[in-house]
Amino acid sequence: MNLTVTDVRLTPILVADPPLLNTQGVHQPYTPRLIVEVETADGITGVGETYGDTKYLELARPFARKLVGREVTDLNGLFAVADEVAVDRSRVSGQVDVGGLRGVQTADKLRLSVVSGFEVACLDALGKALGLPVHALLGGKVRDAVEYSAYLFYKWAAHPDGVRAEKDDWAAAVDPAGVVEQARRFKETYGFTSFKLKGGVFPPDEEIAAVRALAEAFPGHPLRLDPNGAWSVETSLRVARELGDVLEYLEDPTLGTAGMAEVAARTGVPLATNMCVTTFAEIKEAFTRDAVQVVLSDHHYWGGLRNTRQLAAICSTFGVGVSMHSNTHLGISLAAMTHVASTVPDLHHACDSHYPWQSEDVLTERLTFEAGRVAVPDGPGLGVELDRTRLAELHRRWLDDDGSHRDRDDAAAMRIAEPGWVTPEVPRW
Amino acid sequence: MNLTVTDVRLTPILVADPPLLNTQGVHQPYTPRLIVEVETADGITGVGETYGDTKYLELARPFARKLVGREVTDLNGLFAVADEVAVDRSRVSGQVDVGGLRGVQTADKLRLSVVSGFEVACLDALGKALGLPVHALLGGKVRDAVEYSAYLFYKWAAHPDGVRAEKDDWAAAVDPAGVVEQARRFKETYGFTSFKLKGGVFPPDEEIAAVRALAEAFPGHPLRLDPNGAWSVETSLRVARELGDVLEYLEDPTLGTAGMAEVAARTGVPLATNMCVTTFAEIKEAFTRDAVQVVLSDHHYWGGLRNTRQLAAICSTFGVGVSMHSNTHLGISLAAMTHVASTVPDLHHACDSHYPWQSEDVLTERLTFEAGRVAVPDGPGLGVELDRTRLAELHRRWLDDDGSHRDRDDAAAMRIAEPGWVTPEVPRW
Repeated sequence: MNLTVTDVRLTPILVADPPLLNTQGVHQPYTPRLIVEVETADGITGVGETYGDTKYLELARPFARKLVGREVTDLNGLFAVADEVAVDRSRVSGQVDVGGLRGVQTADKLRLSVVSGFEVACLDALGKALGLPVHALLGGKVRDAVEYSAYLFYKWAAHPDGVRAEKDDWAAAVDPAGVVEQARRFKETYGFTSFKLKGGVFPPDEEIAAVRALAEAFPGHPLRLDPNGAWSVETSLRVARELGDVLEYLEDPTLGTAGMAEVAARTGVPLATNMCVTTFAEIKEAFTRDAVQVVLSDHHYWGGLRNTRQLAAICSTFGVGVSMHSNTHLGISLAAMTHVASTVPDLHHACDSHYPWQSEDVLTERLTFEAGRVAVPDGPGLGVELDRTRLAELHRRWLDDDGSHRDRDDAAAMRIAEPGWVTPEVPRW
Repeated sequence: MNLTVTDVRLTPILVADPPLLNTQGVHQPYTPRLIVEVETADGITGVGETYGDTKYLELARPFARKLVGREVTDLNGLFAVADEVAVDRSRVSGQVDVGGLRGVQTADKLRLSVVSGFEVACLDALGKALGLPVHALLGGKVRDAVEYSAYLFYKWAAHPDGVRAEKDDWAAAVDPAGVVEQARRFKETYGFTSFKLKGGVFPPDEEIAAVRALAEAFPGHPLRLDPNGAWSVETSLRVARELGDVLEYLEDPTLGTAGMAEVAARTGVPLATNMCVTTFAEIKEAFTRDAVQVVLSDHHYWGGLRNTRQLAAICSTFGVGVSMHSNTHLGISLAAMTHVASTVPDLHHACDSHYPWQSEDVLTERLTFEAGRVAVPDGPGLGVELDRTRLAELHRRWLDDDGSHRDRDDAAAMRIAEPGWVTPEVPRW
């Protein structure tokens, strides 16, 4: 058995994305992802997936070259490789990332987002070589299926730019009735029993009304509201007061550890985050100040599945809950999320996933939700198979793109509908 | 490849131990260890080692029965198995364990000490089955050799009870000159360049003099002093003042998080511990209060190699150093310690090991120190081989024992030399 990496292929793609609204703007018709393939000397290929914007590609290319000749078992060494990859300072000058939706931008976070794609690909290759599922490489699953929540979005019926001829088959949802209708379809189609609404789009009273409508339509179902830090401390507290009886948690109501700590100190509603705590460096202050009660991990930006397990262990040690955040992703990442989530003992909240919103994928067979759960794949590696024809098609779209979709920009998409739109200052309300 | 456990063998043994002194008393001539063998359906055997006192055997036996039929990959599941094993309340009624030298005793800690022996055995079996070293199963080594420190003890020339005819070949060491002579031999024989003195045996001034003598004999070498919590806060601070210029760290000068936090707040000398923080449950308070600057992990009582890595990740996240504690152990555990230590990025202090004090072992070939380091084994599994003849001999000694050595009792050994000796109240000074 020869586990040496002999080739690494990087395939940037553009995948269709519905016009989902958030506090920054609206999703563009296509969003970039990067598919990583790692091949071993024995001809085994492992696949990974991560962010595909230019700044990630810039790091992934030198990283890929450094990976050749290393062992797929050498996962701890990936971080040293990452440290060798230079990050352009201009890429981390901003304060926030991915439309302002994934917290502070740092060189390390950029690097870790790249590492994760390679780590998952190495784990997939290793699992295939050994005949073991990825979860076994992480110490073994402690559950056979992983629960996900319905990820509700305010959305338009169609993209404003007319770039994509075909409309998605979801209706518009811009008011409580639309949100409830969306939730109903999610529940019927996928069996989800908990609901998260991406907020920060409309004034708080409208979003409060939407959550109230969900609570009435689905009594007893866990509900979450996530305005991506759009609110002030006082607004956060007002929403917490008004929705405290139906919320499982409030996600990133306000930006920053200080604000979150203040909200947490003054409400009994648990606060979840994927913006305040997004790196290991941010944990100490946030946990010491009891600023967050649930950390929503995202293996893409925490540096992979093994780091996600470490994060979960830290959370457990400090009495902080853990669950999973999601940005737009495809089936490779859903498989990776499901594997790692299956190995985390203290996972007490359904994970987030955009997957139902993605009509396109690069797998020969898509993963499915049953009763809101994804069964943990038990085949070797991730247990998924790359559809190379489909991959080539989506890569062709990336090649043909005029550049307007290669770097996600929710504000640019919004400006097509609302000329003059700029990313709102926070707190917006 | 069939990774199902088909058989588990537990072999309690007694191994020779020199008359090493500590604050509780003196090591007995023989000390118990438990050797764990896990066999898979393919006939592959993995070995592990842990504490061998009766209370551990009581838990290990039902644990072993529950392990049969499970997969050696199912390492996360070992903790659930442990939870099913009932712990006799009388076993955890005391405040401290192993002669008062390993912190608070809890049912969980007892269980984890048993889990660790099985976890290492499963990792060894898995590595052998896959043709991978244990470090590769932990994500890969980040160094080729692991540094250890010389573990200096005050000791007598011979055991007081006359049970063991043969004397060890180390001289007595009950004063500064004896300690320096011992250190010199450690350095010449094994190449160690840092020194730890087990203190709490003589009044602080005598131990201060011993450390001063070490500093003069080995200028520039990192030094540590560990009185196992025998001192008051004020005494701890006095020692810190007097030795601050030569100490790498002071280890468990006083007992308990509150006392350690007070000492830490009032001295610049880093405090290390394997008594104040010995479980995940103790971390939050200790780290929040900055009570310790270095945690000395011991995979035996933290629940194995994977938990040790989690502990290291937590320490790194909170800016706390990490290194390794040791109780009396054999080569299986030294191999296990070396494998896991090789995978921890932020390991900035030489690890402790009693191994040079153990003249007996259960390996066909003992591990060796070169320039104070143990080379990380790259063979499958732990990379060590069990000597079954030797194992049988040491087990025979355990079978033949009249019961006086099956449960480590340093105070009992001391009473032979000093009738009426009782474990000193702390703080002793």
